[in-house]
Amino acid sequence: MTVKLYHAEPVANSLKSIIPFHQRGIPFESVYVDLHKFEQHSDWFVALNPEGQVPVLDHDGTIITHTTVINEYLEDAFPDYPSLRPADPVGKARMRYWNKFVDEHVMNYVSMHGWHRLVTVISRNIESGDFEKLMERIPLPDQRKKWMNARSGFTEEQLAYATEKVEYALDKVEKHLSENKWFAGDMFSLADINYYSHCGMMIERLFPELNAASRAPHMIEWRDRVTAEPGVAKALAGPDHTDPRLRTFTGEAR
Amino acid sequence: MTVKLYHAEPVANSLKSIIPFHQRGIPFESVYVDLHKFEQHSDWFVALNPEGQVPVLDHDGTIITHTTVINEYLEDAFPDYPSLRPADPVGKARMRYWNKFVDEHVMNYVSMHGWHRLVTVISRNIESGDFEKLMERIPLPDQRKKWMNARSGFTEEQLAYATEKVEYALDKVEKHLSENKWFAGDMFSLADINYYSHCGMMIERLFPELNAASRAPHMIEWRDRVTAEPGVAKALAGPDHTDPRLRTFTGEAR
Repeated sequence: MTVKLYHAEPVANSLKSIIPFHQRGIPFESVYVDLHKFEQHSDWFVALNPEGQVPVLDHDGTIITHTTVINEYLEDAFPDYPSLRPADPVGKARMRYWNKFVDEHVMNYVSMHGWHRLVTVISRNIESGDFEKLMERIPLPDQRKKWMNARSGFTEEQLAYATEKVEYALDKVEKHLSENKWFAGDMFSLADINYYSHCGMMIERLFPELNAASRAPHMIEWRDRVTAEPGVAKALAGPDHTDPRLRTFTGEAR
Repeated sequence: MTVKLYHAEPVANSLKSIIPFHQRGIPFESVYVDLHKFEQHSDWFVALNPEGQVPVLDHDGTIITHTTVINEYLEDAFPDYPSLRPADPVGKARMRYWNKFVDEHVMNYVSMHGWHRLVTVISRNIESGDFEKLMERIPLPDQRKKWMNARSGFTEEQLAYATEKVEYALDKVEKHLSENKWFAGDMFSLADINYYSHCGMMIERLFPELNAASRAPHMIEWRDRVTAEPGVAKALAGPDHTDPRLRTFTGEAR
């Protein structure tokens, strides 16, 4: 039996899919995909995942994509390891409510600001003809649009709307965490891992102007509790090959 | 034990949440919420669901919202009724992949065209001062924006992008259904109900220019198979109080 996870640096989607393995103690083979070299659009990778996106789970030849789906799959396929999904139906529904919220109302808006900061680096490093060739290799039309937008620059309106979405989410999450220890209630679950990986862990670095520490103190306490979870700490300590010039993207530095 | 479903007409979100009850044979109390009177923004309803949106499930006082979450909850809470979720982990993952696709890449884009057709009717029927008062009662900022956009008119660019998304989905679904009987493989599941309720059942009426019958023949055959499922037929036969002037919205007429 082989379990392979194809992933990039321990941030966002990749982090979200690596944490459950470490936290639950499921043995897996880690395969690093180098986004700096656009390996996710290369022939061998697109043969694996026609959408050309990391992460990808290969379980004995069955391919599973999309982190929310992957993480529930790991619960269903490996029920004998410690669980990150509440056992009762209401707890499961709470977890899924928040997963959906992060997937639909948080992830892309944080990500837009991450991409926005990459623009100058991208323009500096990719020649015009090369850029068009890279674009042709991207399978998903929306992903291609995002790259072209990032190159030409997102509009002020797009960025302002994204900030508004992040602020709305921050206040909603703060209210919830002032009344609950974890997103799904009493138990550290996949929903915590989701918000943490896409927003919570980097919110102070990406959005210093939001003053998360004073605006969302319960979220910050929760963030520190998540960081201290053994599987999270282990995932974060994984190799990070980020080009230092791109560290704005992972939020590690400016 | 009481199971109440608050819903509107049998189309889109409401249809998606009604079908599983009928198809699985779970007894429930149906509570009609009149969207024509904006009951979903009234005090009694917002006390139930602070987001001010139908449908809402009330299971012995526990409130569950969002149709994808509700339908999985019904699987977890009522495991003794016939299931609409594959039993094996891979089947579950396939179902969730498609649910996510419909939720994130289909629903809102079909819905924008439905709303677009309402514009003239809205302008005709709501006085300017009343409209602003109605807007103030809408809890979700994005929902408020959608109403204001619908009134002032979506831009050509927004509508064109929405059509592009629907076309992409149609071709993707057609390819999948040319190789699989149902979305999740061998079994009629919640993913079929999702695409059917939000797009499949009304695609020819809302987007006649896409020529779905010739462009996506397997999807059309699948659509007819879904319509013939007993629980679907029963849900569709439920009361429809749609104001005849608004029938463009449910796709029943032009």
